[in-house]
Amino acid sequence: MYDLIIVGGGPAGITAGIYVARKKLKTVLISKDFVGQLGKAWDVENYPGFEEISGLDLIQKFRSHLKKFGIEVKEGEEAKKIKKNGENFDITTTRNNNYSAKTVIVASGRNPRPLGVKGEKEFIGKGVSYCVTCDGPLFSGKTVAVIGGGNAGFETAFELLQHCPKIYILEAGDKPKADEVNQEKAEQSGKIEIITSAEIVEVKGKNLLDSIVYQDKQTQELKTLKIEGVFVEIGSLPATSFVKGLVDFDEHDQIKIDPKTNETSTPGLFAAGDVTDSKYKQVIVACGEGAKAALSAYEYLQKN
Amino acid sequence: MYDLIIVGGGPAGITAGIYVARKKLKTVLISKDFVGQLGKAWDVENYPGFEEISGLDLIQKFRSHLKKFGIEVKEGEEAKKIKKNGENFDITTTRNNNYSAKTVIVASGRNPRPLGVKGEKEFIGKGVSYCVTCDGPLFSGKTVAVIGGGNAGFETAFELLQHCPKIYILEAGDKPKADEVNQEKAEQSGKIEIITSAEIVEVKGKNLLDSIVYQDKQTQELKTLKIEGVFVEIGSLPATSFVKGLVDFDEHDQIKIDPKTNETSTPGLFAAGDVTDSKYKQVIVACGEGAKAALSAYEYLQKN
Repeated sequence: MYDLIIVGGGPAGITAGIYVARKKLKTVLISKDFVGQLGKAWDVENYPGFEEISGLDLIQKFRSHLKKFGIEVKEGEEAKKIKKNGENFDITTTRNNNYSAKTVIVASGRNPRPLGVKGEKEFIGKGVSYCVTCDGPLFSGKTVAVIGGGNAGFETAFELLQHCPKIYILEAGDKPKADEVNQEKAEQSGKIEIITSAEIVEVKGKNLLDSIVYQDKQTQELKTLKIEGVFVEIGSLPATSFVKGLVDFDEHDQIKIDPKTNETSTPGLFAAGDVTDSKYKQVIVACGEGAKAALSAYEYLQKN
Repeated sequence: MYDLIIVGGGPAGITAGIYVARKKLKTVLISKDFVGQLGKAWDVENYPGFEEISGLDLIQKFRSHLKKFGIEVKEGEEAKKIKKNGENFDITTTRNNNYSAKTVIVASGRNPRPLGVKGEKEFIGKGVSYCVTCDGPLFSGKTVAVIGGGNAGFETAFELLQHCPKIYILEAGDKPKADEVNQEKAEQSGKIEIITSAEIVEVKGKNLLDSIVYQDKQTQELKTLKIEGVFVEIGSLPATSFVKGLVDFDEHDQIKIDPKTNETSTPGLFAAGDVTDSKYKQVIVACGEGAKAALSAYEYLQKN
């Protein structure tokens, strides 16, 4: 029986861990990995104290900071289901381990939103990627497509410029949503081609991906693009499925919190970071939320 | 006419500055100095990314981070009064300079709370101190007392270990409020003695402080401790006098904010960090609040 289980090893979860370790709470932190959204960020310039650092370097610094306090960490497994058991919480993980605790902090962050089309799951790791920082270099010399014409999609394309001779950006709307400066930069690159009104239908290939099929929403015509890599950049979804029914969500499946204390609708269960309905999704904000959730969990344990 | 004036050069104000500089807002940051509460912290172990760093080193890192973005900084003056002028804000400073802006972020932090006992004012600089980092070395070889048994009091005592043969910690409650780890560390030092249920009555001396008188709240007995230095660590008061009447305060003179957006009761005026009614006063929380205030000010300027 733990005092606290922290679900998630991103900025919010790690900061919560640092805070409770100093309070000597018996804690376990469960995380798939220590990459997450931050680890995929090419360049972070707005985390105070580090003028310029890669997301992966920053999360590594957070992680060694946590390690110093000797908190128990279970890496390589994810929370599958959290249930209330009397006053306590029982967590089952993807490795079928069970953990019980008096309190829980959910800091599971967000996952990339999938396309939801035929072939997508099949070709993950064989041409379909959700992380240019992780996978970009694997597509050296190849023609690729980025799905999503927002700033994230354009920045993914810019990162691919160093590896790929030709990059398509496919946008479902009739024009890209990215900032003007990004659109200009894409045009000047001479390597980026933007296709609008493109509704993705299927990703195809034999062993490896070799093409993408989309419908031109203006003409209803189905078109095929020969490419060897697809980077999906159409937003993200909160990783909240394992607490469904246990806490209140907002209309975007984000966990509703009291922004002052990070309490959820379930006493003893706290949430922090991008998984919540907090307005601004930023590393430094998530860290602050993690500290608040930790101090609230500590206070709850003193009272209960 | 600025887009934004930031009042305060602590973690909240600097983070706000980093965020708005990236948004290209015309901004000036006004601060007495770049020391504040954080600069007086001997040792910070819970700002994620820096396993162990002095408060002064951390605030210097924040400051150079801000400098990189070339934001305008007015050091050596403090906001004396903020007034509404039509849709804008006018600020007068202690140097009688005037600044006007469309929005303001108040991040002025807190000042040490005085004991409010006989002799205290008289012996400031002659034995009474509110800053161990500033004054600790002056008490080399002397017996001293720290008033306040919270984390701040214990950390003050730890910093004094290198200078003083004997350190008392006087706590008004029946047990110290400091974290377990700090209490253990104090015990292991062999030099720190904790006196609980001690209500300070007077600080005494001739030219220099030589003793402190306290009442034992268990026995009602008055006791005198021979010491040559007193470090007061009984909390702090928000630096809010210059916005009195302009925004709503809570019962502790803290600025009331919407914890999701850092808006105050006055549109266009935002507040962040320890000056607000936020529940947890922590460096990492203040930084998160600064980022949120900055993004809210930016959003306000887009709309107005």
